[in-house]
Amino acid sequence: MRVRLVQLGMGGVGRSLLRQLLDCAALHHARLGLRICVVAVCDSRGVLLDAEGISREVLEDAIRLKQEGNDLRQLEQAEPNDGFWPALGELAAPDCLFVDCTAADETAPLLISALEKGAGTVLANKKPLTAEQSTYERIAHPRARSRWESTVGSGVPVIAAMRRLIESGDPIERIEGATSGTLGRLMTGLEDSVPFSRLLRQAHREGATEPDPRDDLSGEDAARKALILARGMGMRIDLKDVRCQSLYPRAMDQLSVEEFLNRAPSLDEGFTSRCRQAWEQGLKLRYRLEVSRQGCSAGLAAVEPSSPLANLRGNDNLVQFHTRWYRKTPLVLQGRGEGVHATAAGVLSDIVDLARLD
Amino acid sequence: MRVRLVQLGMGGVGRSLLRQLLDCAALHHARLGLRICVVAVCDSRGVLLDAEGISREVLEDAIRLKQEGNDLRQLEQAEPNDGFWPALGELAAPDCLFVDCTAADETAPLLISALEKGAGTVLANKKPLTAEQSTYERIAHPRARSRWESTVGSGVPVIAAMRRLIESGDPIERIEGATSGTLGRLMTGLEDSVPFSRLLRQAHREGATEPDPRDDLSGEDAARKALILARGMGMRIDLKDVRCQSLYPRAMDQLSVEEFLNRAPSLDEGFTSRCRQAWEQGLKLRYRLEVSRQGCSAGLAAVEPSSPLANLRGNDNLVQFHTRWYRKTPLVLQGRGEGVHATAAGVLSDIVDLARLD
Repeated sequence: MRVRLVQLGMGGVGRSLLRQLLDCAALHHARLGLRICVVAVCDSRGVLLDAEGISREVLEDAIRLKQEGNDLRQLEQAEPNDGFWPALGELAAPDCLFVDCTAADETAPLLISALEKGAGTVLANKKPLTAEQSTYERIAHPRARSRWESTVGSGVPVIAAMRRLIESGDPIERIEGATSGTLGRLMTGLEDSVPFSRLLRQAHREGATEPDPRDDLSGEDAARKALILARGMGMRIDLKDVRCQSLYPRAMDQLSVEEFLNRAPSLDEGFTSRCRQAWEQGLKLRYRLEVSRQGCSAGLAAVEPSSPLANLRGNDNLVQFHTRWYRKTPLVLQGRGEGVHATAAGVLSDIVDLARLD
Repeated sequence: MRVRLVQLGMGGVGRSLLRQLLDCAALHHARLGLRICVVAVCDSRGVLLDAEGISREVLEDAIRLKQEGNDLRQLEQAEPNDGFWPALGELAAPDCLFVDCTAADETAPLLISALEKGAGTVLANKKPLTAEQSTYERIAHPRARSRWESTVGSGVPVIAAMRRLIESGDPIERIEGATSGTLGRLMTGLEDSVPFSRLLRQAHREGATEPDPRDDLSGEDAARKALILARGMGMRIDLKDVRCQSLYPRAMDQLSVEEFLNRAPSLDEGFTSRCRQAWEQGLKLRYRLEVSRQGCSAGLAAVEPSSPLANLRGNDNLVQFHTRWYRKTPLVLQGRGEGVHATAAGVLSDIVDLARLD
């Protein structure tokens, strides 16, 4: 069994995926008789192409080069990637998997055309699945050779679990989750009575937030994950239909990052009082995504202490499914792997899963 | 895509599986283009056979008949099942799945011969996978068309999660779990200071234990689950190598069920003191299975309050994986579906999963 791989994106997830692919080559061959052969790798500036498979040495050079902050074009073997990955679509064939490790909006047409030519697709990129409904349906059709585990739970097999529930005919009534490590850490800190702004400043200093922490606080990432889960349940909705609560007033979007952090203490009282209010009712404050036939939302919620969400501490992620067979207590998946490595491992599991379908 | 199904066993799980198969027929066809066609069903006394597919009416009759405590032979269409499912092996072919919903020791040869003829196998039955190592390896070889989710986590996708970890090359360092709803309920009750014997009597009265509660208390079921997980990690060990703690002295095996329940108060003090001891150290008492390269065990353990196992209440099940990428906090799967229905749903997900491989 031989699979050819076209990888889009050489950020942290993309580099870790290549590293893990190289490390796993012997395991995959011994265990499954599987050879995964990388025929193309690209970033937004350059492309590495070799129909026979890019050699281990060149892939390692590429990883190192990107690690040092350069772009692929600087490799001797690379070609410029003019426009957006133009020639890659021509590689698509049934023995080929296209892997999207970018965070780009522009990959959907390439993925769709690859699927139309019989290739498979694996996504860590949420954007194509949270664009218009028709794009989602073409990429994530139940019969399409597509997987997208790492878009929601990083390496935690949330989508695989949902697929199993749906295909056993167990109707999903509600999904709840806390899928942002950053927001989880903030919520735990608030419980321990630390002011919001101090928690935020510290997390930012430690690199535990996005470079601009508003990218975490806006809730957009949680909203995209909620949308992917909702569409997985068969709901036909768009990102604009997800009620998404931002944890700062959008007027603060004008500020620089440093100004924003300096003015964050103005948010402290609001958080402290919401947290106290929840506590007085015997509840716990969480940034929760919730999906049901009634709608789809991401925002602050006070949850019952009996909910698995209430037990969540630190930056662990959790998704819980309420279904016909899991009604009294939900089916829960919880965990937080090591950053980009766990995300890349989820992509790699998807790759092997699709390779088995060949 | 058409799959022929041979189902062994018509107990609670087997009946629920047939019911769910009938209920899901339209879903499977619409979503996946999949038709699952039951060509044989048997219990230890009778066989229903129809190479064209047993009709919905006959399957419903069979479910009803078994529900009422009769055996399959009483159906007009049934044939006696002399010896142990003799002719079924002849049905095996690549478009065929053999599903073992029994609790019998004797199914392994049939499953192995089915695999050799290119059929797939799905097991809810732990026995074949906990027999000698060579039997395990033939049924559960990574390249075999086999699935056995419901042997460990009922419907909770523990084995699927483990497969994903292994195939992404993330080495599993340790697995911990609490996989007995009955024992979980007893442990929660002890925490609430209720005497062990009273908890046991009540659970037995409510049908929440096996008919003979010693089948729960012996720990054998947990030991078998631990063994399946250990072998899944690549360890070559047998059931006798699993250190298994029984929660009653084996001398009490001689008693009738009623006598055993009457004498159970003699166990109360031991449990109360172990529970108090744990509590005084800030720990919680659990019946835990544990698998690592150092060995495989099932027994009482005092766990740290930060462990997900400590948060477990009531009869929820939980399995946690400690791996390279899940080292600080484990990957956790938790849930307790509704009895045989959730178990059968797990079997059905496995069936669909294998059907996709065709």
